[in-house]
Formats: sequence, structure tokens, C-alpha cells
Amino acid sequence: MLNFNYYTPTRYVFGRGVEMQAGNLTREMGCRNVLLVYGMGSVVRSGLLDRVKGALEASGIGFTDFGGIKPNPTDDRVYEGIGLVRSSGIDGIVAVGGGSAIDTAKAIACGVPYDGDFWDFYAGRAVVEQALPVGVVLTIPAAGSEGSGNSVITKLDGMHKISLRTDWALRPKFACLNPELTFTLPPYQTASGIADMMAHIFERYFSTTEGVEVTDRVAEGVLQAIIAEAPKVMAKPDDYDARANIMWCGTLAHNGICGTGRKEDWVSHFMEHELSAVYGVTHGAGLAVITPAWMTFMAAHRPSKIAQFARRVFHVDTIDDRLAALEGISRLRAFYSSLGLPVTLAGLGIENPDFDLLVSKLHENKGEEFGGYYRLTKAETREIYGLAL
Amino acid sequence: MLNFNYYTPTRYVFGRGVEMQAGNLTREMGCRNVLLVYGMGSVVRSGLLDRVKGALEASGIGFTDFGGIKPNPTDDRVYEGIGLVRSSGIDGIVAVGGGSAIDTAKAIACGVPYDGDFWDFYAGRAVVEQALPVGVVLTIPAAGSEGSGNSVITKLDGMHKISLRTDWALRPKFACLNPELTFTLPPYQTASGIADMMAHIFERYFSTTEGVEVTDRVAEGVLQAIIAEAPKVMAKPDDYDARANIMWCGTLAHNGICGTGRKEDWVSHFMEHELSAVYGVTHGAGLAVITPAWMTFMAAHRPSKIAQFARRVFHVDTIDDRLAALEGISRLRAFYSSLGLPVTLAGLGIENPDFDLLVSKLHENKGEEFGGYYRLTKAETREIYGLAL
Repeated sequence: MLNFNYYTPTRYVFGRGVEMQAGNLTREMGCRNVLLVYGMGSVVRSGLLDRVKGALEASGIGFTDFGGIKPNPTDDRVYEGIGLVRSSGIDGIVAVGGGSAIDTAKAIACGVPYDGDFWDFYAGRAVVEQALPVGVVLTIPAAGSEGSGNSVITKLDGMHKISLRTDWALRPKFACLNPELTFTLPPYQTASGIADMMAHIFERYFSTTEGVEVTDRVAEGVLQAIIAEAPKVMAKPDDYDARANIMWCGTLAHNGICGTGRKEDWVSHFMEHELSAVYGVTHGAGLAVITPAWMTFMAAHRPSKIAQFARRVFHVDTIDDRLAALEGISRLRAFYSSLGLPVTLAGLGIENPDFDLLVSKLHENKGEEFGGYYRLTKAETREIYGLAL
Repeated sequence: MLNFNYYTPTRYVFGRGVEMQAGNLTREMGCRNVLLVYGMGSVVRSGLLDRVKGALEASGIGFTDFGGIKPNPTDDRVYEGIGLVRSSGIDGIVAVGGGSAIDTAKAIACGVPYDGDFWDFYAGRAVVEQALPVGVVLTIPAAGSEGSGNSVITKLDGMHKISLRTDWALRPKFACLNPELTFTLPPYQTASGIADMMAHIFERYFSTTEGVEVTDRVAEGVLQAIIAEAPKVMAKPDDYDARANIMWCGTLAHNGICGTGRKEDWVSHFMEHELSAVYGVTHGAGLAVITPAWMTFMAAHRPSKIAQFARRVFHVDTIDDRLAALEGISRLRAFYSSLGLPVTLAGLGIENPDFDLLVSKLHENKGEEFGGYYRLTKAETREIYGLAL
């Protein structure tokens, strides 16, 4: 087990109606006038935005609307938000929505007190040392941004989709998690979110670090819970307990508890980010395609942990590691398919993928070779994209 | 799944040598002059106390020694500590040791700013609203107090051993967790700690709340990790990875992550507290006796969750719930025995237990009937003590 720091000072408030606590929680995080960041139509149509505004007003919190954040959020809205906050008396940010709204809120939060270009943080040229406090009302269990210190933003110039990871500076101060808010998610979005949260666990679980039995068992436990509950939410979208399990799984998948004490990987995410940036695919659906392809490559090159996953999560009983791994991957693809997710690039609508472009952008962003579980060259990442055909 | 709040603002710093960060961490929690709370000989003899003092001095932190805290810590030392802090410029507390030192530190921390008697909090007559900041250097993985908001103190007058539970007010600000510090624990203390942390999970896991698959799976995962790693630490006390797993399991067992969204139980703990108070037994060893006895009663009266435990943690494949539960209990007792723990009152050295005294003290403290998984009368708690013979 490697040394680690684990500090998750996010107050999770979970259950029915908890969005009505957003006002008090914003006051407790020390804010009186916030930027209210949200997405497209659904939070407005559902009446959620009005309820949150009402909760803020009831607690004497002023707010400025900053809506219309799109999936795969872009830097232009971040610059706009930073300017808006700086020109007003805004002292915090409340995001209402999923990862796109939250990640935009975090980018604005660290950009405001920074003298330079906020993109410096994402480009690895500067480290976040301070940020405005951020609170969250979550509507989509997927990105895990409600509990993580991370943010992913796409730079329009060159379509670079880049992750920023902080230990704790960008962890939200509070997160209101009401499973009822997810009852009306479209099935494809629910399923994509499930693939996303599973990938957050895989990226931590597929590790070469030995001696991390407890972290493995916790990760395998959350994966098993997702696999048990996912069919229930697909079959009955208003199954409260199933939605509640999936929502909390999404948070646990990415708040770090599944990664303590080990080297992580994140190659599948980086490879998918290029798909999202170039082809605009839904992140989770892209991961349902890329993750099994990455695992298939690993079954040939470093099968041991893929085999452990197959045995402990999917109860594969094959003795040979490579064969066990392949059987586990087969069951994972069948699981994704059962949720209505694609498992090939063609299924994502990408008939003739531009492998040269994907590979060159990927290595431009991540270097000649990268990967925690297995270091990959350009030829190898190209092979993995090929395994997704 | 029930609504829940989960807020764990403890900074865990885990790994080799992390006790040397205690000075900087104390400074970061805003303190300049601390009460240094510790136990008996071992932290002094091992040189750990001197290293922590050196780390505090290097960060310009003043400290006042407050040592000699004994197992099953008592209220007299708490009053003494409160008086010492109030009469000096002390602004925080650092505990070096296990649950006894930490729980004493927490009791002093909430007692200092309170106008009344600190025992009001333990007696349920007042709620902790403020407390001095507490930091921890952990030496015994067992009580889980390094990550919990709880504290257990024994009132000498009447020997009442009572738990105080807070959501977050008494959670430590930081916890330094160096597995190497546990290499020299006596085997019986290591084993007792393992039984204690397992009981912390059982008290949360044995619940009647439905629809908590993820919380179940996480709890089962931590239990499986403990069962895999415990024999390794017993066989090879300086097995770093095994010690690291056990140490982190002890924290996860009690920081709340195994309890989210459900009603908890805690009967075994309350029953054991009476054993500790009356007979002075080691808490964890007492739990190794009481927990299987409680489970045996439940196998007859409400076997379902005991059976799930048997199947998922000990891989029992019996179809009948009651029989599966009994087989799981048998395997749990065998596991405790393999660690050198007693599984009967006689094994604890209690040849002729005073059931009348134990039962009357228990219900005096907890009421006529109590229990989360199953409400127990005096006749039933007496029966459970009897099953521990």
C-alpha cells in the first residue's frame, strides 16, 4: 500500500427533498451572494431551479443566473463566468445539475482568485491554492464531481478536453443528493451515467500496487451494487431505493474511497475524452466502448487484475487469468448492452474513426507514453481504439 | 434507504513516517499550544512521543503533557484535563495513542467551552455545539475514534461506560495513520482491535432497513478484507501491507461509510460496555464474546441479515436462513479463536457472571427495551448474556 492523503470535507445531504436545504447550506459555507450555474432545459422545466432559488431566497442568499451550460462544457463559459463574478459582489457558486454544471462552477471558482489564465491549472502550469466555495444540487449520478476535487473542461481552441485534479481545493462544500431528481432522466443518460461511475472505479482498481485488499474490496463492493441496482432503475425509473443506491454509488466511485493507497490508471478516460472532443459522444457511452477495449488489450498483456475483477465481481470461475479476464470482459459488455449502451465505435455512430487524429491528440495531451496499470505507446493506444471497432 | 447526512472533515494522512507531519497539521488546524494526551508506557518507550514532540516543536507548537490515560478511560481524567486547559493558553488537543487517549481528548475538547458538566453530553442532557480542535496520531487500530465523531467515557461513580455520538463536532481535524506504529502491539491487543472494528461494522450492517445494497456491499467488503488480512498480521507482526490494510479497515469500520442510509443497532456494544465496566475486560475481546451470542439469538428470531452475512462474507451456501446464520456464526467464532480471542465469558475469565447486575445496569443506561435490529427486553438481553457462557 502506498502512502496517501485522504481529505473529503464535502457535506453530503442525501434523501428526499434535500434540495430545499440548499439555502441554509450556502449560508453555512459562508456565502451571501452566489453565481447559480446550471444547464439546459430540464432543471428549469422540472421546477427544480425555482425550488432552489426559493430555498436561497428563504435563507437571504442573493444569486445571479448563469444557465445554459452544455454537456462537455467549454472554456468560453468559464471565462464569461469569471468575468461576471469579478464584476459583482458574488462570494460563492451553487451548481444545479450534473458534471457539466459542477465542473464549470469549479473552473470559475478557481479562476476568480487567480491572477493568470484559469487554463493554467488544466494545462498543469499552475496549482490551485484557493477557490471560491462551491455547493451542489445534483441531478445526474455519473461524473461524481459532487464529491471529487476534479473538473473536466474542453478548450474550444483545438478541442482539448482536459481533467484537472486537486486533492481537496475543488471539492464542493456541500452536495444535496435527492434520488427523486433522477427519476425523469432519459434511459440513455441513466445508462451512460452508470458506465461513467463504473469507469471511475475501474481507473482506480486496475492498478499494479500490491497489498491494497481493503481498497480492492470496497471498489468491488460498489461495482457489485451498481450491477445489482442498474437493471432496477432501467426497468422502473421511479424505484427510489434503486435510484438512491445508484446515486450514492456515483459519489463513492469518484470521491477517492475506491483509490486509497494505490497508483491509478485513467487511460480509458483520456482515450474517451478524445472521442468526446472529436465526435461529441456522451462521455459515459464512450466509456462503455473504450473500457472493455482497454481491458481486452490488458487481457493479453497484463491480465491479473482484470481476472480478479472477473472472478470477484462477475463470479467467473476460470482458472487461467487470460481466459478469466476475457470472460469478465464479455460479461461486462453484455451488462452494458442490457442497459441499452453501445459497446463498439459503430454503436456510438462513429463508422470510420480517424485513428490518426485520435492518437495524435491523445499523445499530444498526455505524452509519448502514459498509463498507470500499463504504459502505452502510440501503437498500443491505436491498437486499443481498434479493439473498439 | 433512509435520508442521511454524511460529513467527515477529517484529514487522513496515511503511511510510513506520517507522525512527523503532526506539527504542520496542528498548525493547519489553527492551534499554537496544545494539550498532548497519551496513555501508558508504550508511546513513551517506543520513542513515538518524543518524535511527535519534536514535530510539534519544529512547527513552533507549544504543548503540555497529559499522559497516563488508561484503557476504558474515566471521567476523573477528563475533569482534570478540562481544568488544565482552562487555566492555560491551550487552544487544541493532540492525542497520541488509541481509543482511550482519543476519547479522553474529545471529552476534554467539548467540555472546555461548555458552561455545565461535560457529562451532560454523555448523559444525553446536552448536545455538543462547539469543541476545541483535536488531532490524532494513532497507535492502535481498533476503536475507530480517529475518524468518528464518537467518544466513550466511563463515569467512576457507578461505573457507567457511556458512548457519546456526534455527527461531526467531535471528528478529529487530522489523523496520522502510520501502520509501522502497530508492529509492536501485543498479539492479544491486535486481535482485540480486529474484533472491535468488525463489531463496528456489524452494528451498522445488522439493520432492518431495506434497499441499502451499496452500504451492505461496502460493509461486506471491509469485513472480507479484515478476515483476509488478520491472519497475516498475527503470523507476521511487521507485515507492512497487512498492518496497513487492518489500520485503514479500522477507520472505515467506524467513520460512518458502512452505515449510510440505514438504522443501526449497537446492542452488542452496549452489552459489552457493561462487561467492561463491571469486569474490566478488554473491549474488543468482550465483543468477540458478545457479538456471536447476540447473533445466535437473532438466528432464532430474525435470521435474514445474519444469513446474508454468512453467505456473502463467509461463503456459506446453505439455503435455510436460520441454518446459514448458525453456520456463519460458527465460522465467525472459529475466526476469533484463530486470532487467540476468547468466544465465551469463561474464556474472558468471568466464571460466574452476575447476570442480574449486568442486565440491570444495561437497562438502567439504555431503557426498558432497546435495539435497532430487534428490540430487546430484559429477559432477552439476559438470554443473550447466557448464550455467551
